[in-house]
Amino acid sequence: MLNTNLKRIKNDIETISEFNSTPGNGFTRLTYSDQYRGAMNYLKDQFSKLGLKIMIDPVGNLRARLEGKDPEAPLIMFGSHIDTVLHGGMFDGVTGVVGALEVIRVIIENNIKLNNPVEAVIFVEEEGTSFGSFVGSEFLTGLLSTEDLKGLKNERGLSLYEAARNYGIDVNIRGKHILKPGQVKAMLELHVEQSIVLDSRKIPVGIVQAIAGIKWFEVELRGVGNHAGATPMGLRQDPMVGAAEIIAAIKNIAKDKGLPSTVATVGKIKSYPNVVNVIPERVKFTIDLRDIDIEGINRVEKEIKKKVEQVSDYYGLEPAVKLITETEPVTLTDSIINIIEESAQELDIDYLKMNSGAGHDTEVMAGITDVGMIFVPSVDGRSHV
Amino acid sequence: MLNTNLKRIKNDIETISEFNSTPGNGFTRLTYSDQYRGAMNYLKDQFSKLGLKIMIDPVGNLRARLEGKDPEAPLIMFGSHIDTVLHGGMFDGVTGVVGALEVIRVIIENNIKLNNPVEAVIFVEEEGTSFGSFVGSEFLTGLLSTEDLKGLKNERGLSLYEAARNYGIDVNIRGKHILKPGQVKAMLELHVEQSIVLDSRKIPVGIVQAIAGIKWFEVELRGVGNHAGATPMGLRQDPMVGAAEIIAAIKNIAKDKGLPSTVATVGKIKSYPNVVNVIPERVKFTIDLRDIDIEGINRVEKEIKKKVEQVSDYYGLEPAVKLITETEPVTLTDSIINIIEESAQELDIDYLKMNSGAGHDTEVMAGITDVGMIFVPSVDGRSHV
Repeated sequence: MLNTNLKRIKNDIETISEFNSTPGNGFTRLTYSDQYRGAMNYLKDQFSKLGLKIMIDPVGNLRARLEGKDPEAPLIMFGSHIDTVLHGGMFDGVTGVVGALEVIRVIIENNIKLNNPVEAVIFVEEEGTSFGSFVGSEFLTGLLSTEDLKGLKNERGLSLYEAARNYGIDVNIRGKHILKPGQVKAMLELHVEQSIVLDSRKIPVGIVQAIAGIKWFEVELRGVGNHAGATPMGLRQDPMVGAAEIIAAIKNIAKDKGLPSTVATVGKIKSYPNVVNVIPERVKFTIDLRDIDIEGINRVEKEIKKKVEQVSDYYGLEPAVKLITETEPVTLTDSIINIIEESAQELDIDYLKMNSGAGHDTEVMAGITDVGMIFVPSVDGRSHV
Repeated sequence: MLNTNLKRIKNDIETISEFNSTPGNGFTRLTYSDQYRGAMNYLKDQFSKLGLKIMIDPVGNLRARLEGKDPEAPLIMFGSHIDTVLHGGMFDGVTGVVGALEVIRVIIENNIKLNNPVEAVIFVEEEGTSFGSFVGSEFLTGLLSTEDLKGLKNERGLSLYEAARNYGIDVNIRGKHILKPGQVKAMLELHVEQSIVLDSRKIPVGIVQAIAGIKWFEVELRGVGNHAGATPMGLRQDPMVGAAEIIAAIKNIAKDKGLPSTVATVGKIKSYPNVVNVIPERVKFTIDLRDIDIEGINRVEKEIKKKVEQVSDYYGLEPAVKLITETEPVTLTDSIINIIEESAQELDIDYLKMNSGAGHDTEVMAGITDVGMIFVPSVDGRSHV
């Protein structure tokens, strides 16, 4: 039986965690930052020491290749990401990257010769903290043109195209870096669960069956700004009251009108002018709506929009609901799910078949190859905060 | 009969409105700013031309004195303020200052000799945009010590004490500038209504009977931040949902449990970390609660606190409700209300006896003298935005 080395894994994770721009306040390692470069250099060194061929592609995806007996056979890929949200968790993404590194070490140590080439991949900008989610996997699978990369801008207005150039890579060279259907046999990603299901049930492995589709909306309600003291309750067109009723309703709609797998979240809100003694003239908030079944998303979206109209009519508000982003639900490949399940049974490891509410690069890779995902527990279910 | 000069009033208001740091986007004239100094210099010149004795006190209140036949008789004061909220209205405060200037012009033009000295007063920092509301009137009536002025800080951490020094006045010289009970016979303030009652009913004059008391609260709800996609609806401790239910309830509590005169407003809200795909770990919002009857405030405060507890219990949130500021309701002086009412009747001007939901320096002056307020309509009821 092959064994991984826990001490080595721990050392990798701890070393990477030290490349952090917010020590003491979570882990922040933004794409193309000094911390990002530091962690990438550490990993590049590890793969190089193992004799792997390293390639950094034009957006910064790292691919480390272990040659197979048949170099022309389609690739087996595994990996994840090392960028973070602001003040994120220590294990998000890093688990899968270090997992891939450790598996390659074990293959080499045990002198195993695989038929197919194997690649560890570190996808750039998975979280989308600077330029948008899944940039690395979307580039790799040909979904992003050079023009698209010029249009992806961070909060300071710098495009990914320029940022990559400043980092020292050239996004103009696209051609040969794009993976096409047939070139890859399978993609496997190990990731922390990012919720409390495995941790609370003390199950060490989750086998992912589907990844939720996502719709992000921005809702803006325009009312009439006015003096908080001088405007009687009955004469108000207060968008904060409207927003509150809608946000409270969203939770109930997701529970009552969605599927058991539907989730809806309001994470971001802004009041204008955001002053204690002024009835806001407008309030903006976001909705993050997810389900592994598009039916759940569609039903809840319809009901939320109905609620927005109804509340806006009642309070005399002018509503606008804008779709910001959208991804389809993805079903993972049955044959890979079966292989993972059989392995777990062989090794007598307790497992749970489950879905992923969070998005992953693997759902993008599903566009060109068979895919699988393995979850490990997040302590208290927390990965992003 | 004495007549005011509309052209002169219009010219004053327009001239003052040009001292504005946000032209095209409302009127912004912050205490001690260049725009503030410009408008003050214009007004100082106008009062000087009329032969009045000008005094700028240690916090920047301007007092322009027209001597009476009996210089020892108690003062009759009238005036208002010229500082603004951010992007405020053209008439807020300025109406009362220009009104006082015009009345003094008419007194002088008509060669009227009054027994008591008359002072036009321009209170500094009424709005509290930089250092806190009613600083001028509170200083003038002895409520603020030099130490207090050192503690009043703007958003950049500069104290009013230092800001006044930078402006060229010395807040250390307090003594003789403080007005004591007995020194003032009456204070009268003319102001725009700041709501739509007079404008919608086409009534030109409001006679104020009471000014609402105010309580400001900051409510913080701590929940459990987590990934928006990976956390099932039933496993959430989401402070945004809690905040939404409380804010929606506040409106109903004010209407159903308060008095007809009670108003409650949530103007300011902040989510942490305020990210689309993260269930917030905490949400903070403010409550502005007002009534001319303290009973209305007390009842609504009690019910809101009950609601905060109940919602927090239900969602597993940790609530904190903090009182930020508090002023008592003020009843204006009957004898002055009667004089205004008789004058309106004599002149055959339609009027409405009403209350002020907004606070005014006059409520602070009520601590040392008899007070009255006259409202004129705000077009569409808007003064602050």
